[in-house]
Amino acid sequence: MKKYFLQKADENLPKIYTEKISVSSDTKVLHRGDSFVLDLGNHYVGYFSFVLGYTNIYPDAPVRLCVKFCEQKEELDADYSLYKGILSPSWLQEEIINVDSIGEYKMQRRYAARYIKISVVFTPREITLSDFVFTAVTSADKENQVKANIEDPELKAIDAVGMNTLKNCMHRVFEDGPKRDRRLWIGDLRLQALTSYYTYKQDDLVRRCLYLFAAADCDSEGFLPGYLYEDPTFVSGYWFLRDYALLFAVTLCDYYQHTGDEKTFMDIYPVAKAQMEAAHRKLDQNGILMVKDAHDIFIDWNRNLKKTTALNGVYLYALGTLYKTLTMLKHEDANLYGLRYNEAKEAVLNHLYNKAEGNFANEYDGYQTSVHSVAWMILGGVIEGESAWALLQKTIEDQNSEKAVTPYMHHYIAEAMIKLGKNKETLDYVKNFWGLMVRQGADTFYEVFVPGNPEKSPYGDKMMNSMCHAWSSTPSYFIRKQIENS
Amino acid sequence: MKKYFLQKADENLPKIYTEKISVSSDTKVLHRGDSFVLDLGNHYVGYFSFVLGYTNIYPDAPVRLCVKFCEQKEELDADYSLYKGILSPSWLQEEIINVDSIGEYKMQRRYAARYIKISVVFTPREITLSDFVFTAVTSADKENQVKANIEDPELKAIDAVGMNTLKNCMHRVFEDGPKRDRRLWIGDLRLQALTSYYTYKQDDLVRRCLYLFAAADCDSEGFLPGYLYEDPTFVSGYWFLRDYALLFAVTLCDYYQHTGDEKTFMDIYPVAKAQMEAAHRKLDQNGILMVKDAHDIFIDWNRNLKKTTALNGVYLYALGTLYKTLTMLKHEDANLYGLRYNEAKEAVLNHLYNKAEGNFANEYDGYQTSVHSVAWMILGGVIEGESAWALLQKTIEDQNSEKAVTPYMHHYIAEAMIKLGKNKETLDYVKNFWGLMVRQGADTFYEVFVPGNPEKSPYGDKMMNSMCHAWSSTPSYFIRKQIENS
Repeated sequence: MKKYFLQKADENLPKIYTEKISVSSDTKVLHRGDSFVLDLGNHYVGYFSFVLGYTNIYPDAPVRLCVKFCEQKEELDADYSLYKGILSPSWLQEEIINVDSIGEYKMQRRYAARYIKISVVFTPREITLSDFVFTAVTSADKENQVKANIEDPELKAIDAVGMNTLKNCMHRVFEDGPKRDRRLWIGDLRLQALTSYYTYKQDDLVRRCLYLFAAADCDSEGFLPGYLYEDPTFVSGYWFLRDYALLFAVTLCDYYQHTGDEKTFMDIYPVAKAQMEAAHRKLDQNGILMVKDAHDIFIDWNRNLKKTTALNGVYLYALGTLYKTLTMLKHEDANLYGLRYNEAKEAVLNHLYNKAEGNFANEYDGYQTSVHSVAWMILGGVIEGESAWALLQKTIEDQNSEKAVTPYMHHYIAEAMIKLGKNKETLDYVKNFWGLMVRQGADTFYEVFVPGNPEKSPYGDKMMNSMCHAWSSTPSYFIRKQIENS
Repeated sequence: MKKYFLQKADENLPKIYTEKISVSSDTKVLHRGDSFVLDLGNHYVGYFSFVLGYTNIYPDAPVRLCVKFCEQKEELDADYSLYKGILSPSWLQEEIINVDSIGEYKMQRRYAARYIKISVVFTPREITLSDFVFTAVTSADKENQVKANIEDPELKAIDAVGMNTLKNCMHRVFEDGPKRDRRLWIGDLRLQALTSYYTYKQDDLVRRCLYLFAAADCDSEGFLPGYLYEDPTFVSGYWFLRDYALLFAVTLCDYYQHTGDEKTFMDIYPVAKAQMEAAHRKLDQNGILMVKDAHDIFIDWNRNLKKTTALNGVYLYALGTLYKTLTMLKHEDANLYGLRYNEAKEAVLNHLYNKAEGNFANEYDGYQTSVHSVAWMILGGVIEGESAWALLQKTIEDQNSEKAVTPYMHHYIAEAMIKLGKNKETLDYVKNFWGLMVRQGADTFYEVFVPGNPEKSPYGDKMMNSMCHAWSSTPSYFIRKQIENS
């Protein structure tokens, strides 16, 4: 089947659209040590070229330039030699290039940038740089995007940034971030696909990504890897995340729901089912899906977080979604998931719900309270209605509970609010959280955003953060879905 | 005429031959901080590629490598950050590259190298590097090179290095050095053309270079620039060297002598004549061609050298060569050069020759003695026979006389010996001087070579020296011409 899945993935390889962004700038006359900044006017992903010239005397040696690509203005003055994070500094977008001759020079690599800083390290003569062109690339077809009549100017601005975020992460696959990682992750894929259904509606790209994961190698326990590579060759990932594996099944169901493409669903369903079976095998004597190691579950980039409750919420969410989808398809497995859903919900109520306190402070999670637990218990259908809403609000406001670090987790909080019917409150949440990035000047939504803690990074150094990250694009989904439903 | 000359130059643009040099090497398994050296087995000029792979875990970030191309083993450990010379450090062949994905990686720039040192600056995982290929380029057609039966093994070895030197400097033009400068100089062109007539016999490339200089812009005094650029566009040089301008006329005569191509000669002759006229206008009241400033005359990279005598030797040499060539062509200007030659020789005997000492210690050159003066006076026909030979030997041995620094000047010493009929002594000179480089392991002849002073550099730092320099290729000319004439 792997060969078949990869073939189907290939058939859905998207067209890449290019857009030449001419940077309005005078010709720069430069000497050794000079530097300047170009502003592309927006965040783009692509390739950079310029023309090297001279004023009076032909440069009789190569010209050595340092070219730095920055997603945000703040990065322009950062000294990358001081980077102290855990991820490879080779992600930091700075190059030393030697330009051998006058004329057009095309840089080879792809960059994610709004700003470009060029410094003249060495030049033998007075040179000029001009004709700066950034050739933006994306597989998002802007001409055929879904129209939406968003009247609220604040939401309209937020939607534009969400659309831009998704566009700049759409390439051969839905990349998580175009500056760093640049790979396909299940968790990101699900949110990108949801946003895509309401924006660029590029179902073929979703289909391609589903087939790619269907071709991936599961671990010894049967779970899909959290990510994969496909360029230049298909390489299955090495990090297995149980919540992501379960969300693969949900992503497949979302796809069927938004496209009606039964053929693809049925092709890939066995892989989704295998995830549910793998999870089922990992239930403990209480019927609770176990966290083997915090490293095996994502949920959020919150290192303090205890994850059993949230993970069981994801499991319930996947069971419930599969049940509903298979019922639609009159598939024999529907009842299986219905049965397992009920069993799992009962186990959660018995072992994770704290009846005395009316929350999810439980032994499994060391009696920790978190927005993650509450949101996923709502999404899993364990709690509902006004009491669930009250608990969510209380946990968000409680200084002692663990909070969301990533827009990825904020998405699931907002999704939980929608589930509770709190449509207006959801859009307020979108305005408060994602809207704050827009008010602070974001062209795209960030990988990590903790209001009041701008230096927050999962990687030990803010320089490594991705400032255009696909899992943060879902405001467009919330805003547009609400309009569609109103 | 400029347009016509450039069109003719274009018509003679050479074919570029490529040769894939596979570097025999095991696959290298590497971690951060590792480095290794590849030995190409000989000096080549061209492009480098390799294949990035991994052992167990796909490298989940770009791999940052430092790749250093060295003409000689000694350069491998040189720290280029300590470079302190006067020329641009961007000539030093070291790059930091970020390799985004596994598979073949082709470096963009052209390098001159025998050794390649690769250091892993950062890698997120254990990687492999393999399939190292150096694609050598040259416009020398090795298949059609002139055969020569060189019996003396020492001369045979020297000839091979001379051939290799010329080959690696033959590209779109005769470059002076493929590591640094990479441009067409008149002084280098003359020696390359001479060697070419006896080796690769690529007269079209000589023709192209002659037309290119014919298209160049003379200075206000009418002299051609010493060099020019032609890629990506034709750019006339800014440094005007009177001896080089005169040697342009000699180079054109050499070309006619070796090819019989009267059409090209007559096309370009007006430009050569203009050089002679410019020189004629610069004779002082004694009839001596003036050195305005030592910077306007090359002769050699010897900064102590006083150049009036040598320059007047070049002038006489050019006049004599033109006289002979034009007489062959029954051209009306022959007599003009014959007349001027006699006048100039008389002026030199009266004002530059020191009758009392029997040498060229004269007021113009501050009574300095040099091998340069003597060699060029022999080549100019001012002195001849055994007394000239004795003076040359005495000056070479005299600890107080200025000596040759470059193989370029050593060429003219050897040529002077030939003019004196000292064929055996010339080959001994070749064995002593160029042969010493071969005995020391040279794959190509160096730009600068002063036995006993390996750190000698015209640029303030040995790192900048070119170890494959075309003006040093003439042993092949001396050796092969002697065989042809014997």
